[in-house]
Amino acid sequence: MKTFLDCIPCFVKQALRAGRTASRNEAEIKALLDRIGRRIESISLEHSPPEMGLIIYDEIRKITGVEDLYEKEKKEHIAEALRLYPKMVRARDSSADPLLTAIRMAIAGNVIDLGMEKNFHIEDDLQSVLEQEFALCDIADFKRVLAAAEHILYLGDNAGESVFDRILIEVLGKPVVYAVRGRAIINDVTREDALASGLGGVAEIISSGSPAPATILKYCNEDFLERFNKADMIISKGQGNYEGLSETDRPVFFLLKAKCPVIARDIGVEEDDIVLKYALKKQ
Amino acid sequence: MKTFLDCIPCFVKQALRAGRTASRNEAEIKALLDRIGRRIESISLEHSPPEMGLIIYDEIRKITGVEDLYEKEKKEHIAEALRLYPKMVRARDSSADPLLTAIRMAIAGNVIDLGMEKNFHIEDDLQSVLEQEFALCDIADFKRVLAAAEHILYLGDNAGESVFDRILIEVLGKPVVYAVRGRAIINDVTREDALASGLGGVAEIISSGSPAPATILKYCNEDFLERFNKADMIISKGQGNYEGLSETDRPVFFLLKAKCPVIARDIGVEEDDIVLKYALKKQ
Repeated sequence: MKTFLDCIPCFVKQALRAGRTASRNEAEIKALLDRIGRRIESISLEHSPPEMGLIIYDEIRKITGVEDLYEKEKKEHIAEALRLYPKMVRARDSSADPLLTAIRMAIAGNVIDLGMEKNFHIEDDLQSVLEQEFALCDIADFKRVLAAAEHILYLGDNAGESVFDRILIEVLGKPVVYAVRGRAIINDVTREDALASGLGGVAEIISSGSPAPATILKYCNEDFLERFNKADMIISKGQGNYEGLSETDRPVFFLLKAKCPVIARDIGVEEDDIVLKYALKKQ
Repeated sequence: MKTFLDCIPCFVKQALRAGRTASRNEAEIKALLDRIGRRIESISLEHSPPEMGLIIYDEIRKITGVEDLYEKEKKEHIAEALRLYPKMVRARDSSADPLLTAIRMAIAGNVIDLGMEKNFHIEDDLQSVLEQEFALCDIADFKRVLAAAEHILYLGDNAGESVFDRILIEVLGKPVVYAVRGRAIINDVTREDALASGLGGVAEIISSGSPAPATILKYCNEDFLERFNKADMIISKGQGNYEGLSETDRPVFFLLKAKCPVIARDIGVEEDDIVLKYALKKQ
């Protein structure tokens, strides 16, 4: 997905919010905004929005020296999701369609996002997403592609959400490779977070190599690209991965909650809608 | 009022909105945002926010060549306010306290603001502000200062709102000097707008010389400064004038609707509150 003009003020707002998390020094935060301001010029509208996320968090690292801004929050979110895990497993297994229920749960986990303005409450939001109608639901394609798939690549999004990914991976019934970010950025899931979420027992965990809060192929490592090109099913979680891959010709299923109005418009749904979208679907 | 960090993303958002009004060319709007981004560095948090307004609209003029971006809207707002004028005069004159009713009307007119994100509907908003409780109402001071005043200076804000100012000026019972901006900026009232609003018959119209969407004394002309310093009552309309003058030691009455959360916090009220605040009041 390309960057829209509306993304630009939003980048500055994100930088302010992240700056305030990283520092209490007003002059330091102002210096961050000055640097982000200067870099607006370098944003091409042809690039995807998470490339600016990369720049913002790089600048924060430079100015504040904080490497992993949301380390504490990530641990808390994983702990809270793990607390909910047994209850979710029971709900999934006693439902009429455990696969679809697990997909809903994986999408529900996508509310855990510190890159967005919106506040969230994991347990309440989980419940409301479980009851929400899909705005777009390519479940028939999902089941068909899954049945034939030998190589499933699952693109993780945020820490904590990763526990909800596990709920889904457990019922896919196929070997799964779970890809995490190349380094800590916002609250995106890293190898350490994936292991803490219990994903080590259900998937092979690899790094995409992407340092951005998204799967941006030009930043990914060789190993990941090979698996990406070989996979016959790719499950992509969250907005960042959608932004990076929306124009792909690979068999990608996007599972997300459209938390941003620009992304919602790009997908053709409303803000706050939940989506299971097959990239190769003829619209 | 100084600039807060929260103002910075808001400046970029304002620039985008204004850029979209001035141009349909995406590259041109992006160029505007690039330039605004570069100028963030030059914003001192010690300056008042409308100084950035000045920069934004200067850049728009440079890029698009559009001198008076909201010329058409200003004319329409004046026409609509003039249509409501006879009804407002009747309501004012038949009310228990015509002066206070006229103050409410003048504040109601402050919803006409194209610098803000919020949409407005003049007639509906007028009605709701007329029924709204004041969050802060220094009416006793207003009446006391008015009774003794010989030189009243009235600082206009937006075009259209200017007709509502006339409703108040008509019941002040004293000679009034009405100050407009030094040039067209956003939808701020200019001499031409003031005349079109019928203010020529009830006040002497002067230019403050300020090219900003606010009364910023360092940009004002000699004549205005002399009158500002001599006036024994100054009525200041709207947020921009408050931002420029909030730390004044002159007998200023601020009449405004707090449409911005940062300004509301600075005044000590909630967003959307209406305010009649005396600058010299001991809090």
